[in-house]
Amino acid sequence: MNYRIGIDIGATKINFVLLRKQRILKKKKILTPGTKEEIIEAIEENIRCLTWNVKQKEVEGIGIGIPGPLNEKGDLVLNPPNLKCLSNCPLAKIIEKDLKTRTLMDNDVNCFTLGEAVMGAGKEAKFIVGITLGSGVGGGIVAKLGLVDETRSRKHIYRGAFGSAAEVGHMTIKFDGLKCSCGGYGCFEEYCSERFFKRKGILPLKLEEKAEKSNKFALNLYNEYGRYLGIGLANIINLLDPEMIVIGGGISVAYPFFIKSAKAEIKKRVISPLSKQYVKIKRAKLGDLAGSVGAALLVKS
Amino acid sequence: MNYRIGIDIGATKINFVLLRKQRILKKKKILTPGTKEEIIEAIEENIRCLTWNVKQKEVEGIGIGIPGPLNEKGDLVLNPPNLKCLSNCPLAKIIEKDLKTRTLMDNDVNCFTLGEAVMGAGKEAKFIVGITLGSGVGGGIVAKLGLVDETRSRKHIYRGAFGSAAEVGHMTIKFDGLKCSCGGYGCFEEYCSERFFKRKGILPLKLEEKAEKSNKFALNLYNEYGRYLGIGLANIINLLDPEMIVIGGGISVAYPFFIKSAKAEIKKRVISPLSKQYVKIKRAKLGDLAGSVGAALLVKS
Repeated sequence: MNYRIGIDIGATKINFVLLRKQRILKKKKILTPGTKEEIIEAIEENIRCLTWNVKQKEVEGIGIGIPGPLNEKGDLVLNPPNLKCLSNCPLAKIIEKDLKTRTLMDNDVNCFTLGEAVMGAGKEAKFIVGITLGSGVGGGIVAKLGLVDETRSRKHIYRGAFGSAAEVGHMTIKFDGLKCSCGGYGCFEEYCSERFFKRKGILPLKLEEKAEKSNKFALNLYNEYGRYLGIGLANIINLLDPEMIVIGGGISVAYPFFIKSAKAEIKKRVISPLSKQYVKIKRAKLGDLAGSVGAALLVKS
Repeated sequence: MNYRIGIDIGATKINFVLLRKQRILKKKKILTPGTKEEIIEAIEENIRCLTWNVKQKEVEGIGIGIPGPLNEKGDLVLNPPNLKCLSNCPLAKIIEKDLKTRTLMDNDVNCFTLGEAVMGAGKEAKFIVGITLGSGVGGGIVAKLGLVDETRSRKHIYRGAFGSAAEVGHMTIKFDGLKCSCGGYGCFEEYCSERFFKRKGILPLKLEEKAEKSNKFALNLYNEYGRYLGIGLANIINLLDPEMIVIGGGISVAYPFFIKSAKAEIKKRVISPLSKQYVKIKRAKLGDLAGSVGAALLVKS
């Protein structure tokens, strides 16, 4: 019972990993098909392919990470904005039935955080907040002891009282600021997702190229971005006092360009001298695989 | 071993309670003396007086709640702005030595939250955030299972990785807003402590009298105050997803006047439909005694 399979379903690609204990044995990446049926077929085919030489009883289970909200029980994908074909799909149940293997599901940022906490940048830390910077700003909380979880020897995703903890993207950081898609004003996500760069009329990738060449406009823009990021991270530190924050997501490729101004803002806005001094801010280590690794880790071995 | 003593030291008064299991047997309130020596003497005298007919071996311990930051180990008062005479005082150790009774110490908002969580408004809830609205805005987090605590059968104060969790007052809610005493800008505390009313040129108590008489100016001001409060509470809910928020502190006497607009703002700014629907916002129940009751509960029976 040493093998676990992790799947990270994104709007454009699906990542697969096969873990043996805490080692990545195999990985695979495919383009996300356009319909529910095709997605299910592709997942099942690729799982069979990854595990062709593993006995079924050796496979502990399958974990799936998926964007956006699940229902309270965590077994139904609700309405992922970028993956509408999976709306109201009991995906884990379908895979579990078809492949006769226990299958669990959680949102992708929780999986990202669990992956980084157990096998990535947060390996040595007990209490990690994961942040993904991309089309939105996502958050996850993983601790050695879940606030409401019963088991306690391993790192757990903290889900809150109603399964909706760590919705960091919709913290207000400027109450009369920009209107957010959620209907609120001045959400963290408005200032630290791709929308920040869109408003400035530039694509993150292009900007990163410019910054690599020490272009002043690009460096200034990343400084500004970093300040907003620091404000949001300071709120998280003031409230949660985590040991470590791990930063991933598409925008984090430019980490070296924005992290300095983010850290300066954290120094300004965190009230406790102790957490100001000791909290670690790290870049994610597992790259593209954090989500699928974390999904596999949903299955406890 | 059924008795516990709780002491809540404030800038102007000190509250004492004697608990037997979870019942308040006796309570007492005195004015806070002006020097460290007088404070220690008054505390010890009043403890002796509260417990004159209790055998010493029946007293499980003494708990002290005190404003402002303690050191990492929690045994040294650092520099309470309103109680400067206790700066760098190992108060608990002194009392413990003098009275030969185990003595514990924590900050007053943690004690408030523990008191309300165990014996007050949060009695039935498993995961409570406590908020005090007064000269500052304080916060505490109490859960049935502490994130990093080893024991798990009771409600615990969650302290974070470096002992500084729940510093809600210094969350940024408007990054380019009013300058706060902490050096940051747009802190929650600037908008929801007594400073809000001072800026408007009115004392909270006077305003409450006016609101009682349905004075429009007063009601409007409380509406505005409530909106700011709702913004801060929404941030806490988005991040932590607590089961209940309990609101206390001096300004909470006007709770009925500001809670409606606060709840409306929460509905606007909390992203999860589930926590929006289920999170409970309650007024503190133990009044003046929450802090001293919580202090007594620091001592585990």
